[in-house]
Amino acid sequence: MAAVRVRQTVPVSEFDDGSAVSARAGEVGVYDAGLGEGWRIGGGVNGGLLLSVVGRALSEELGREDGERPGHPHPLAISAYYLTPGVPGPATVRTSVLRHGRAVSNGQASLVQEDGAGGEVERLRVLATYGDLATMDQDATTTAVPPELPPPDRCVSAEQAPPQFLKHASLLERLDLRLDPATTGWAVGKPSGNGVIRGWLRMADGREPDPLLLLLAVDALPPVAFELGLPGWAPTLELTAHVRARPAPGWLRVVLTSRTMSGGYLEEDAEVWDSEGRLVALSRQLARAATPRR
Amino acid sequence: MAAVRVRQTVPVSEFDDGSAVSARAGEVGVYDAGLGEGWRIGGGVNGGLLLSVVGRALSEELGREDGERPGHPHPLAISAYYLTPGVPGPATVRTSVLRHGRAVSNGQASLVQEDGAGGEVERLRVLATYGDLATMDQDATTTAVPPELPPPDRCVSAEQAPPQFLKHASLLERLDLRLDPATTGWAVGKPSGNGVIRGWLRMADGREPDPLLLLLAVDALPPVAFELGLPGWAPTLELTAHVRARPAPGWLRVVLTSRTMSGGYLEEDAEVWDSEGRLVALSRQLARAATPRR
Repeated sequence: MAAVRVRQTVPVSEFDDGSAVSARAGEVGVYDAGLGEGWRIGGGVNGGLLLSVVGRALSEELGREDGERPGHPHPLAISAYYLTPGVPGPATVRTSVLRHGRAVSNGQASLVQEDGAGGEVERLRVLATYGDLATMDQDATTTAVPPELPPPDRCVSAEQAPPQFLKHASLLERLDLRLDPATTGWAVGKPSGNGVIRGWLRMADGREPDPLLLLLAVDALPPVAFELGLPGWAPTLELTAHVRARPAPGWLRVVLTSRTMSGGYLEEDAEVWDSEGRLVALSRQLARAATPRR
Repeated sequence: MAAVRVRQTVPVSEFDDGSAVSARAGEVGVYDAGLGEGWRIGGGVNGGLLLSVVGRALSEELGREDGERPGHPHPLAISAYYLTPGVPGPATVRTSVLRHGRAVSNGQASLVQEDGAGGEVERLRVLATYGDLATMDQDATTTAVPPELPPPDRCVSAEQAPPQFLKHASLLERLDLRLDPATTGWAVGKPSGNGVIRGWLRMADGREPDPLLLLLAVDALPPVAFELGLPGWAPTLELTAHVRARPAPGWLRVVLTSRTMSGGYLEEDAEVWDSEGRLVALSRQLARAATPRR
């Protein structure tokens, strides 16, 4: 008997598909995921996508309401420590709830993959504070000023990137990324040394931003190390993101900055602004710039 | 028979005493600590001191050399998620090693205290990447510029702080803190609203800075929320610090900034500069500004 194929009337976006998790029956807090070939960057799966997968599993765990307390579906602060590079294929996310609070809840999670020898290897370990941005992002005051960028059609898109860059970056096919040409000197062998890369970002398939997508956005641009004249991928050791508000639909603006390199490590700060000019996410990562192995 | 008291010829500094940990016999990775009355701030023990206690335990665990790999005694990146306020009294730190690497190692730790009902309550959960700064902090390049401050004797010391501030801040007796008078309007009821507090910092007993002390330094100043006109202590939900170099002896300069408050939460960024003008630590925390409980 042939299975009936149900025509999917609401297509799942690439991001929702790529970061999907499925609760494993009979194992509390355990989720199955699949890391797709389409999210590669450099030597592995993009760190922002890995964070989104884990962030979604924590959202499932911490977002559930019960009689006693409201659900906390959104990451307010989330820290990922990257242990080994994620590779395309099945993955398991194990979550645990550290604390259910009135205003916020805390969780921990670990993403592991099979190591090919019957065991498993951990890719990243995560701690997070979750809350409900729907109850808290109306009132905001800031002294921060949105970045000035040329309009998207005057910026540099991924199609114009050098082939050796695109070759290891299937991630870029998921994104509509337009970089300010003032910050793309690295692409033509003339990095400015300023330590700034900024650009417009939206998903290629039109998927609108939400708090979970911001976890991808903070790590989706080329490494700011490129514009410091440091070629080669800069593996992330640690990344912490704060989501400060639910983004409005439309383009995001992302600004990466780095000021200090010391002992082969540099920090990369990301600010993400929504189409209404609000600072919706902040992140900082510590990355290794120089040495190929750690 | 009276016990013989051994005269201590090398006095232990207040910080080393306050952050001391002692490996518990027979339990791998478990350390005993005691949180002192002298590190109170607001409603509990200072979050930077708590981080220093955990940071020291992780330094013991990850700093050990073995035949295969070098020791990694210094925190390069450390993230703390604060669950409940620490109180003076005994504490237990449980550590686990996530990964021993060639250049860096990763650990996790939890600080717990007795809950008074026969159980225990977790104060903070920590993830960290440790390395050896002695092998890596010689070469540094930066575009960051050290802050300009009036000399320490023209700054405002803790003795000049309002009594209601000092009352709940025994921590300040451990510190020699001199705040730039341009950033202390809050102390006389006239916060600037600029979201900046900066000052000189050293330990009152002369203890020189090292990587561990920087974990205290990033959270030792009055909350930047004060200068935003938000009185009341701002409990930390999450704090991540990057230690970028071993600090030189002498005064540290610390700059706190905050730009955005949203839904009652604000970020507080700290930069710590050493006496040679090097940016030795960066941190960011997410704090709750408005509501007294969470």
